[in-house]
Amino acid sequence: MNKFLSKKEVKFLSSLKQKKFRKQYNEFVIEGEKLIFESLNNNQFIKKIVYSKKIKNFDKLRKLSSEKNIPLHLCTEKDSQRISDTKNSQQIFALIKCNDIKELSDIKKHNNEPFIILDGISDPGNMGTILRTCSWFGCYNIIITKECVEIYNPKTVRSGMGAHFHITNILNDDNEKIIKFFKDNQYKIYSASLSGEPIENLKIKDKKWALILGNESKGISKYFEKNSQQIHIKGIGKMESLNVAEAASIVIHYLSKI
Amino acid sequence: MNKFLSKKEVKFLSSLKQKKFRKQYNEFVIEGEKLIFESLNNNQFIKKIVYSKKIKNFDKLRKLSSEKNIPLHLCTEKDSQRISDTKNSQQIFALIKCNDIKELSDIKKHNNEPFIILDGISDPGNMGTILRTCSWFGCYNIIITKECVEIYNPKTVRSGMGAHFHITNILNDDNEKIIKFFKDNQYKIYSASLSGEPIENLKIKDKKWALILGNESKGISKYFEKNSQQIHIKGIGKMESLNVAEAASIVIHYLSKI
Repeated sequence: MNKFLSKKEVKFLSSLKQKKFRKQYNEFVIEGEKLIFESLNNNQFIKKIVYSKKIKNFDKLRKLSSEKNIPLHLCTEKDSQRISDTKNSQQIFALIKCNDIKELSDIKKHNNEPFIILDGISDPGNMGTILRTCSWFGCYNIIITKECVEIYNPKTVRSGMGAHFHITNILNDDNEKIIKFFKDNQYKIYSASLSGEPIENLKIKDKKWALILGNESKGISKYFEKNSQQIHIKGIGKMESLNVAEAASIVIHYLSKI
Repeated sequence: MNKFLSKKEVKFLSSLKQKKFRKQYNEFVIEGEKLIFESLNNNQFIKKIVYSKKIKNFDKLRKLSSEKNIPLHLCTEKDSQRISDTKNSQQIFALIKCNDIKELSDIKKHNNEPFIILDGISDPGNMGTILRTCSWFGCYNIIITKECVEIYNPKTVRSGMGAHFHITNILNDDNEKIIKFFKDNQYKIYSASLSGEPIENLKIKDKKWALILGNESKGISKYFEKNSQQIHIKGIGKMESLNVAEAASIVIHYLSKI
């Protein structure tokens, strides 16, 4: 029988739903077996796993945790609901250390791989979905501007479906340094926009491209707009715009064809 | 000064957050000036517009409503919060009649236009986002299977961003009748899947295609799987799957190129 989680620990895990505590402790909580497996398989540092007695068969996860010396704790179903960010808790959680957010100068080798720049993405669901799409297409360098929703927001982690554990570099830097980095390294800089070149006209020669995706209502910031090639997805309907996560999918799919 | 909304009316509007009352009265509530304009511009039948005194400048909307004889009602900010489906109400609403859901036999002319079949989409946000993408690419025939989340779910309406008012045909029918309809009309039937032909291999000759999009975790139902050409989007990363709304965007973009 595993140790019961103390009231204090329940309170702590529950507090990590708030950004200020995630920032303070540099830790976040993931929920559900699937996400926990994904984090284990990607060698994420797990501090503990917490489950309620409603979770009966998790032998494989139990074995894996024991191999990796991850402590297991029991909690009540009520505590589980307190820790959870959703209405119906999955009754199993892991406490994880956040990955370091780097600056571009920390990158020694970028291997000419693509970069995605999230410029003020404000909806946590969109952010997670974009990370999931990036991972699907093998884009593992993500730059997040200060105006973005936090990458460890519970909704972002949930819609990311494990993408958080695939990213090689999570980066944050000043807009000027971002553009300088790509110019110095001879990258093509594209921004998804409502005007500009239709993506079908682009000739993609290699993987040295960076794609800027802007805020849901304001779009790309002025400085990025001036310093990138605006590209757009032709629509024929009555809709004013595409959702940014959808635009991201279409453009990343297109640019990844090489 | 417009008439104040009665307590009974507040209760009624608030009740329409629940599916059973939307079904019973065949009405739904939209929130925010933008969505109300979109519904007016697409000649949707609006029964009334309700706003709180927090909304000061809506002269254009007021004029348009008066031209169309739509009654305006004032409500308190508190009532507005009761009617709203979100934490921060936009303080302006319209009560709208749901569009009729047709059967395929009701369609007299389909003009060889594309159809999208939503086969058990369960997340209301995904459903709305897919409708928005359909509208962007001019796909106005949408078939919704019984297993889908309801199209007038408040979250679906919100993420649809007005797409609901662009759709020509919202349809519902038995799976067998759906397949028969497309076979009889010589349509190509595709389904987005994790296996099958990569979409890049497809040669699209005309707009006579139907695309089936499956449930978030279970995918396409067996009968549709057997009776369609499965297509997939190649991924190179560690991700298990793409979100269905993202797959929808990439495939619809690809199929709409003609």
